[in-house]
Amino acid sequence: MSPGSTSARLLISCADRPGIVAAVAGFLRDAGANIVHSDQHSTDPEGGRFFMRMEFVLPLAEGERGAFERAFARDVGDPLGLDWRVWYVADRKRMGILVSRTDHCLLDLLWRWRRGEFEADVVAVASNHPDLRADVDAFALPYHHVPVDRADKAPAEARLLELLGGNVDVVVLARYMQILSGHFLDRLGVPVINIHHSFLPAFAGAGAYEKAKDRGVKLIGATAHYVTEELDAGPIIEQDVIRVSHRDTPARLARLGSDIERTVLARAVGWHCEDRVLVHDRTTVVF
Amino acid sequence: MSPGSTSARLLISCADRPGIVAAVAGFLRDAGANIVHSDQHSTDPEGGRFFMRMEFVLPLAEGERGAFERAFARDVGDPLGLDWRVWYVADRKRMGILVSRTDHCLLDLLWRWRRGEFEADVVAVASNHPDLRADVDAFALPYHHVPVDRADKAPAEARLLELLGGNVDVVVLARYMQILSGHFLDRLGVPVINIHHSFLPAFAGAGAYEKAKDRGVKLIGATAHYVTEELDAGPIIEQDVIRVSHRDTPARLARLGSDIERTVLARAVGWHCEDRVLVHDRTTVVF
Amino acid sequence: MSPGSTSARLLISCADRPGIVAAVAGFLRDAGANIVHSDQHSTDPEGGRFFMRMEFVLPLAEGERGAFERAFARDVGDPLGLDWRVWYVADRKRMGILVSRTDHCLLDLLWRWRRGEFEADVVAVASNHPDLRADVDAFALPYHHVPVDRADKAPAEARLLELLGGNVDVVVLARYMQILSGHFLDRLGVPVINIHHSFLPAFAGAGAYEKAKDRGVKLIGATAHYVTEELDAGPIIEQDVIRVSHRDTPARLARLGSDIERTVLARAVGWHCEDRVLVHDRTTVVF
Amino acid sequence: MSPGSTSARLLISCADRPGIVAAVAGFLRDAGANIVHSDQHSTDPEGGRFFMRMEFVLPLAEGERGAFERAFARDVGDPLGLDWRVWYVADRKRMGILVSRTDHCLLDLLWRWRRGEFEADVVAVASNHPDLRADVDAFALPYHHVPVDRADKAPAEARLLELLGGNVDVVVLARYMQILSGHFLDRLGVPVINIHHSFLPAFAGAGAYEKAKDRGVKLIGATAHYVTEELDAGPIIEQDVIRVSHRDTPARLARLGSDIERTVLARAVGWHCEDRVLVHDRTTVVF
Repeated sequence: MSPGSTSARLLISCADRPGIVAAVAGFLRDAGANIVHSDQHSTDPEGGRFFMRMEFVLPLAEGERGAFERAFARDVGDPLGLDWRVWYVADRKRMGILVSRTDHCLLDLLWRWRRGEFEADVVAVASNHPDLRADVDAFALPYHHVPVDRADKAPAEARLLELLGGNVDVVVLARYMQILSGHFLDRLGVPVINIHHSFLPAFAGAGAYEKAKDRGVKLIGATAHYVTEELDAGPIIEQDVIRVSHRDTPARLARLGSDIERTVLARAVGWHCEDRVLVHDRTTVVF
Repeated sequence: MSPGSTSARLLISCADRPGIVAAVAGFLRDAGANIVHSDQHSTDPEGGRFFMRMEFVLPLAEGERGAFERAFARDVGDPLGLDWRVWYVADRKRMGILVSRTDHCLLDLLWRWRRGEFEADVVAVASNHPDLRADVDAFALPYHHVPVDRADKAPAEARLLELLGGNVDVVVLARYMQILSGHFLDRLGVPVINIHHSFLPAFAGAGAYEKAKDRGVKLIGATAHYVTEELDAGPIIEQDVIRVSHRDTPARLARLGSDIERTVLARAVGWHCEDRVLVHDRTTVVF
Repeated sequence: MSPGSTSARLLISCADRPGIVAAVAGFLRDAGANIVHSDQHSTDPEGGRFFMRMEFVLPLAEGERGAFERAFARDVGDPLGLDWRVWYVADRKRMGILVSRTDHCLLDLLWRWRRGEFEADVVAVASNHPDLRADVDAFALPYHHVPVDRADKAPAEARLLELLGGNVDVVVLARYMQILSGHFLDRLGVPVINIHHSFLPAFAGAGAYEKAKDRGVKLIGATAHYVTEELDAGPIIEQDVIRVSHRDTPARLARLGSDIERTVLARAVGWHCEDRVLVHDRTTVVF
Repeated sequence: MSPGSTSARLLISCADRPGIVAAVAGFLRDAGANIVHSDQHSTDPEGGRFFMRMEFVLPLAEGERGAFERAFARDVGDPLGLDWRVWYVADRKRMGILVSRTDHCLLDLLWRWRRGEFEADVVAVASNHPDLRADVDAFALPYHHVPVDRADKAPAEARLLELLGGNVDVVVLARYMQILSGHFLDRLGVPVINIHHSFLPAFAGAGAYEKAKDRGVKLIGATAHYVTEELDAGPIIEQDVIRVSHRDTPARLARLGSDIERTVLARAVGWHCEDRVLVHDRTTVVF
């Protein structure tokens, strides 16, 4: 990439109609951009919804972004009725992590962040328990202990909003065993990604490995999804499974499952940070 | 295997206690048997349930089976309080197949049977539709068309009992889209294996692929289970999954899923016929 | 799709440079086309190779195809130096199948063809053995027995050229245990897809399952690839694996492997017929 | 487990013959043992090799082990010509780790060790580079920097022998990029487990991900194996793969592969420490 060039992604969602690709690609060509990757999906060419992610490189100083986007709105976005947004690769996302006592998802995220696997910077970790402070300290990151009072969760949520509100672009629940209120999610205003320890919609809620043992399933899974007010019902980003047998106790299922949980969560977080995930009702399009 | 030698399997289920393996293996050694394979499982060494499958070869004429089993009962089974059964490999299981209109599971079973993959002989195919007659004819097997009257299913079940009762050791539902009554299952008196087109307990009942699309799962699955009176709730024998994406329509999910359905069903049927599956409450032990 | 509308795919391969997508999408929009799917890949945005597959629907009578393609060449293909080709969905590919004695890949292809899974019509099956004639007869397809003389394979290849030359768009080797000469491949002039019973490049050549057993691998695989003159070295289209254990004999590996062989081959054939596979040196881009 | 009871495993390898299970199980019953798990494998009931792993609990003080083993040798081992060994669960294995600059396998092993996933204690980490000292310090483990002189590797191997010889029961190469000499392996005298970044036997040696990219494989893998003098040719303990595509650069393959490397290595190390792996020529039996 030459100096002065900007790497960016354009995400589009709209009613499907002919001419969208031509209009967008023509605009980008005229702006001097080179399209590096492009993905598109239509739920139905006639009357469906159209989704697109275009990754491109163009000569654009940081101060020229506003003009570039205004021109796009005027020439393409408004005439075609697009729901669109440009993400600049240089604007790394700020990630907050919430965790309870279990370390596997948290450590995996922190390792990957340190290795540079995510297009994001972890800015803070908060927990309702003090247990994982030393692990987080080793990464030179702030660790906020925010105890949750079962009788009244509002003060804890208020404290989390103070810590995270406006400071993060995404929050990751790395086995955070508290249900977040709709009020909190609204106020936070950024996507929240959760990892659930089952192949949803099977075994939603607590005790997923015990339920799996009791039902005698032959595979266990993990699901990363965006958090909505309804428990474990948000749009699924990624899932995976691992084979188990009658020999495995619930404790052994939890150990095997933890390997799946961390890889599924890492994939979901990585894709989210690369702007690959578009929400469509209660499902996702992952480019 | 020398002439006059018999290949057999001993299946045991009992309260766990010390000395079971020694007693069984000692008895078999004294009977001149060579243990070829042995698997065991204890749900808990203290107070749990013990399961065992021993495959052995011994010099035993067909007429001596009764005496052999009586001796085992007297010396081992009764003293130790075992729930046990001997299966002789030479007694190939007789398999009945029920199917509706979809051919993939049926054809896969018939083809594997023809190749000799199952320790079983298919003896009859019955269907509530006439569609698959020619396919079954090509395997030189009887095809019974038993229409089902939605208003009164009893006559159809009675006809199926006439056809299958006493003539089969196992019945396989190869995408048979009728719910069998508890009365029918009781009267039939042999295990019935069903293939369900989802990763149970997710998406039980009809329309599993539509439900999967609607929920936006990233993997679809299939589940082979023993049929009980409660729909899609019997002990699971085998499951598997395949990755899907936002691009896949319900019709495409059904096509991808059909490949999983047939392999999962074939594995379950194969294991059942080799006496590898022991039921434990509403789960299975698969050796 | 309205009457008079044509579904087609444009495949492009060229040196990467800015403006390709805009030029192609602009041309198609002006021709009245609606882009239904689009995939692209660049090996390197600077100095790399660019690949694209665009699926579109446009109002075009069959007699207007020549003019449409000449206009594309004049306005886009020639100016940008593209290597391109348009495939019309209505022009179903004609498929020839070569097989030896093993039935699993052949039957799986024929079942899928009968179910309508492939955008292709099987037109002939040829074999160096007579064994599978009845199976092919059941699908009302011609079965050509073309014995191969080990001392001189030329007459058999000449006979195959007579049968297939000019009559097929793709040939599938469904476990055909004869090596085809470079001369034959040249004269045939259409892509040939082979299924090899290992995870290439491991265990090329004959006896792959014996080699796998001897080496003690924990997974066995299958590989579908385009055939080139060099044995088992052509561009790989698809691969998959299945877990095995020390218990599995080479015969059991062959049985387990046969399930992988047929699904891997079916995926490769399906993708080829949908024009999803572009060759790049000795690798493939699969859209 | 009651106080005074001992958990142990008996591993047996011998020419197959009738009566082995009965003799072993009878001896253990008479010794007051309860068999908790038992696995056996015969390469061929007639003339093959027999392998067994029996896990049992028996009342045995530490000082009585010698007498117990002498009695077993006298009554069972010697008469039947068994190659056998008893491992006591209380005798946790001492593990040494060698690593170069890459952290993912090392960190994963240390983290699992801290969680208690291995029946082993990590006692030392040695590296030919200083880079990972801080990471190892965080686990309160000694980190030995043992530089390797390319022109003469003998001094480094001598230093490693000083550090590890007699102090470890197993050595794990967690991406240690130096070839160990046969002389070193002999002198070390304990099993050495390596993780190789490909699906062996494909892509042995250096540059596996570049080779995989060049060959265009659709899956990449990792292989954990015991180290022998011949590079990447020792008995394979475990393998796994992950799907990749034409989009993935060698750097991306390395990142995706690192997730497989660490899980494959962790499984192999865990199984080894639980005495589940028996070597058979250049393959393994994994119970």
